[in-house]
Amino acid sequence: MWESSALERINRALERWRAGAAQELATRETSSGIPLEPLYTPAHLASLDWERALGWPGEYPFTRGPYPTMYRGRPWTMRQYAGYGTAAETNRRFHYLLSQGTTGLSVAFDLPTQLGYDSDHPLASGEVGRVGVAVDTLADMEALFQGIPLDQVSTSMTINAPAAILLAMYIAVAKRQGLDPAQLAGTVQNDILKEYLARGTYIFPPRPSLRLVVDLFAYCQEHVPKWNVISISGYHIREAGADAVQEVAFTLANAIAYVSEAMKRGLDVNRFAPRLSFFFNAHMHLFEEVAKFRAARRLWAEIMRERFGATDPRAWALRFHTQTAGCTLTAQQPEINIVRVAYQALAAVLGGTQSLHTNAFDEALALPSETASRIAVRTQQILAHETGVTDVIDPLGGSYLVEHLTEAIYERAKDYIRRIDDIGGAVRAIETRFMQREIEESSYRWQQQVESGQRVVVGVNRYRMEEHHEPELLQVDEAQERAQIERLQRVRRERDQRAVQAALAAVREAAQGDDNLMPYLIRAVEAYASVGEICGVLREVFGEHREGDAA
Amino acid sequence: MWESSALERINRALERWRAGAAQELATRETSSGIPLEPLYTPAHLASLDWERALGWPGEYPFTRGPYPTMYRGRPWTMRQYAGYGTAAETNRRFHYLLSQGTTGLSVAFDLPTQLGYDSDHPLASGEVGRVGVAVDTLADMEALFQGIPLDQVSTSMTINAPAAILLAMYIAVAKRQGLDPAQLAGTVQNDILKEYLARGTYIFPPRPSLRLVVDLFAYCQEHVPKWNVISISGYHIREAGADAVQEVAFTLANAIAYVSEAMKRGLDVNRFAPRLSFFFNAHMHLFEEVAKFRAARRLWAEIMRERFGATDPRAWALRFHTQTAGCTLTAQQPEINIVRVAYQALAAVLGGTQSLHTNAFDEALALPSETASRIAVRTQQILAHETGVTDVIDPLGGSYLVEHLTEAIYERAKDYIRRIDDIGGAVRAIETRFMQREIEESSYRWQQQVESGQRVVVGVNRYRMEEHHEPELLQVDEAQERAQIERLQRVRRERDQRAVQAALAAVREAAQGDDNLMPYLIRAVEAYASVGEICGVLREVFGEHREGDAA
Repeated sequence: MWESSALERINRALERWRAGAAQELATRETSSGIPLEPLYTPAHLASLDWERALGWPGEYPFTRGPYPTMYRGRPWTMRQYAGYGTAAETNRRFHYLLSQGTTGLSVAFDLPTQLGYDSDHPLASGEVGRVGVAVDTLADMEALFQGIPLDQVSTSMTINAPAAILLAMYIAVAKRQGLDPAQLAGTVQNDILKEYLARGTYIFPPRPSLRLVVDLFAYCQEHVPKWNVISISGYHIREAGADAVQEVAFTLANAIAYVSEAMKRGLDVNRFAPRLSFFFNAHMHLFEEVAKFRAARRLWAEIMRERFGATDPRAWALRFHTQTAGCTLTAQQPEINIVRVAYQALAAVLGGTQSLHTNAFDEALALPSETASRIAVRTQQILAHETGVTDVIDPLGGSYLVEHLTEAIYERAKDYIRRIDDIGGAVRAIETRFMQREIEESSYRWQQQVESGQRVVVGVNRYRMEEHHEPELLQVDEAQERAQIERLQRVRRERDQRAVQAALAAVREAAQGDDNLMPYLIRAVEAYASVGEICGVLREVFGEHREGDAA
Repeated sequence: MWESSALERINRALERWRAGAAQELATRETSSGIPLEPLYTPAHLASLDWERALGWPGEYPFTRGPYPTMYRGRPWTMRQYAGYGTAAETNRRFHYLLSQGTTGLSVAFDLPTQLGYDSDHPLASGEVGRVGVAVDTLADMEALFQGIPLDQVSTSMTINAPAAILLAMYIAVAKRQGLDPAQLAGTVQNDILKEYLARGTYIFPPRPSLRLVVDLFAYCQEHVPKWNVISISGYHIREAGADAVQEVAFTLANAIAYVSEAMKRGLDVNRFAPRLSFFFNAHMHLFEEVAKFRAARRLWAEIMRERFGATDPRAWALRFHTQTAGCTLTAQQPEINIVRVAYQALAAVLGGTQSLHTNAFDEALALPSETASRIAVRTQQILAHETGVTDVIDPLGGSYLVEHLTEAIYERAKDYIRRIDDIGGAVRAIETRFMQREIEESSYRWQQQVESGQRVVVGVNRYRMEEHHEPELLQVDEAQERAQIERLQRVRRERDQRAVQAALAAVREAAQGDDNLMPYLIRAVEAYASVGEICGVLREVFGEHREGDAA
């Protein structure tokens, strides 16, 4: 929408400048392979329809932000993912993080919990409390939130296949705190499709999994209306080696599958879609990442309005959590990860994230130490309070480079979604391994670039050191596994066995039928049925998914 | 240069958006007091004359960069300021920094050297080798660059009142390495005006000081043509409490005084001006800082072309070194300074710096440790190799916010320069304490904001900790002072005394007349006359400046 005479002059001058200055420069590209010219100008945005592509914060297509006032209204939620060992141990870390100024909690569960096995299951051995907290029964969930009024925090839970069970436990804890579940704020990840695609912690086959996902949507809509019912995750897709365009495209393709499923079940898109949330990665290429977040908002708004016919603007706005890219952190010279995390966090904030986890610098080595966790939180606080980046909404808006990249990512991601539609949607594209193959190719290309030295990773393929100091590392106490098992067995001894059996029988019956499972799960966890027992019943009804099964 | 119909639409929509969204938002401002609206749009740049205000990298007015290809051609010079203890000790640190990938050297001298006193002078006691390296005679300079071929590095020397003497020593070392001084690349700070204004390491009164400055200009023009003859420094002005606008304005006002003086001495502006360089601070407000660098280039180009009538484009282009803002680093929780430095370094690079010093995180406590120095260098390497910010020239160009701030800083700095012109130029404005008072007011305002808590400094007035780990600190060995004095006295014993006396007498005679002092200084240092001895002669001829003297 520049005057055409001005654009013509700029174009002629650009040609002259290129001829004089830039002809010998090697081509560069972003991590997604988007070619980058040495210089961007208004001439590069000549075809950009400003009002259609950018618009206004809080208005369709939300390119400049999902809310009208963004960080001028309130800052993003500083939400540090934490969890290890027992619930009591993690509870202490939560209290520490809250005392250091984090504004939201984020629970990491251990692998047995994520896979629906109790801590005393043979497959759990060696994994109890290792990558997150072990939660077997409601007793653990109570210990996890001891002293934390659930109406005062927002809590994110990274749990997928058994998401409905863990949310049931959270609701049960809230009720015991005397709260109405309608007061609860937070998120369950509950994104099973990306588990088949990238992360691997699935239990059941896709169909019953999708049923559980949508049962949770429907239940929350009535009873926990402020809860984000899913966190549709590009994070793990990116960590698996996808590039920025694939991260947007595959995440939104999965989201399309959930929305379609929920609408098939008769849910009203204008009611459930405002509670969908997203989870993205903040990777190293600063401007590509900022553009990625802006493009994702624009594309999702278009999908919701044009494809699904949503009419409520809240159903159009993409809101997301961000975590800095764990895969970019190096075990070598780990303190310099502080710098990487700082730049990635900046990208997330310039891209308008709603909440943010900054990785601890020693995460490539082990679970984060307390010092490293504190530095990670301080990074967000410096960003929020000292750099001035919250002063103005979408501060990079208008940058010829960033607008060009936003447009490029939007177009390329849209192309991918078209290809996935042609395949028959995300579930089918996972079954045929289309998305997996695309990710593998990107991952292979990246690795090749690192191995050839074309892509420099400081401290890894350049600027190496002979030796380095090991930072203080947190060790998970192996005695905790035994303690957790004893705790579980004590709960099993002391609970009302008949109530447990009745509740599990009711879950089974509901699973065999069409009822929403959530109320049955809440009753089962309130009777202290364990995650493993409830998942055991569901495994019997739904079957199990194995790697190599058609997803 | 947007179509007026589009601008009208955007303006109307902006009014609508403001009314709906933004009316209750508190005003924010940059550190220079520039008010910030919540959102910027093309409507905010409606009066921007793009071709005049931005133009092309490497072309007048250089807003987008002094060189046509910028970091696409080659990255900035990673130049870490270092120096402490003896020359031999600092030489080891230089070799370490070069082995870690720094691409330029930067010498910190101790206070006695900066003030023209030898290490055995009574006023030097306790200061020898403390804030930089002690250099008394050519023997020290030889030790300082032992094993470093001076045609392979570029060297910056932070030296002002005795700049000509230290440069004479550097030239003498080069000659002993068999090099032609014409091969030398580097910078002497040689900026005496800001010493009266902010930094305090002056020796002589302003008139003879300016003569020394210009003697150096004239000598280098003939004999060391690749040398940057001055580094006109806003850094210390900012550290003294100036804001971003004052940093630009007062630095350029001082620069105007140097250019005027050199032209009065008959030097050709088209020959000497391309060797002027600048030195700025990279402070915390990310976008204000980027805008500051862009505005400074534009304003300087205009001054050189319009005010001084320079016709060679190289005389218009402002090139600068940047150091991250030492004054923003905190002794509390010092590791989080790594994050501050990372954001400041980013500002410098997005602003198009030619070279960069990143502060070590423990500098607020003591001289930097080796680990802290390494992390500081790695910060630059991550920025250069991993973040993609070097892919595109002036990547924030076009950002409505950044263009708005660039324009605002340009206009406000220009106003200040007009006021200084009215006072009678920079020297007069220093004498009348105009600039000092303006800086004091800014500094006071900042302190008030910190004390009231309106300005958050993480770890200082918020997010404090009861205790913190002390990082490993480097201690200056007090025995080094004795060793340096013994070394100096040995040099004095072993040199040809008659040659020294003759050379000093020649310096005296030249100082009393109008000859360029540089050749005399080179002969004196080659005879191993000391910095203190040479300055002693010059003190006798020129007199000394005392605080409170009219500058």
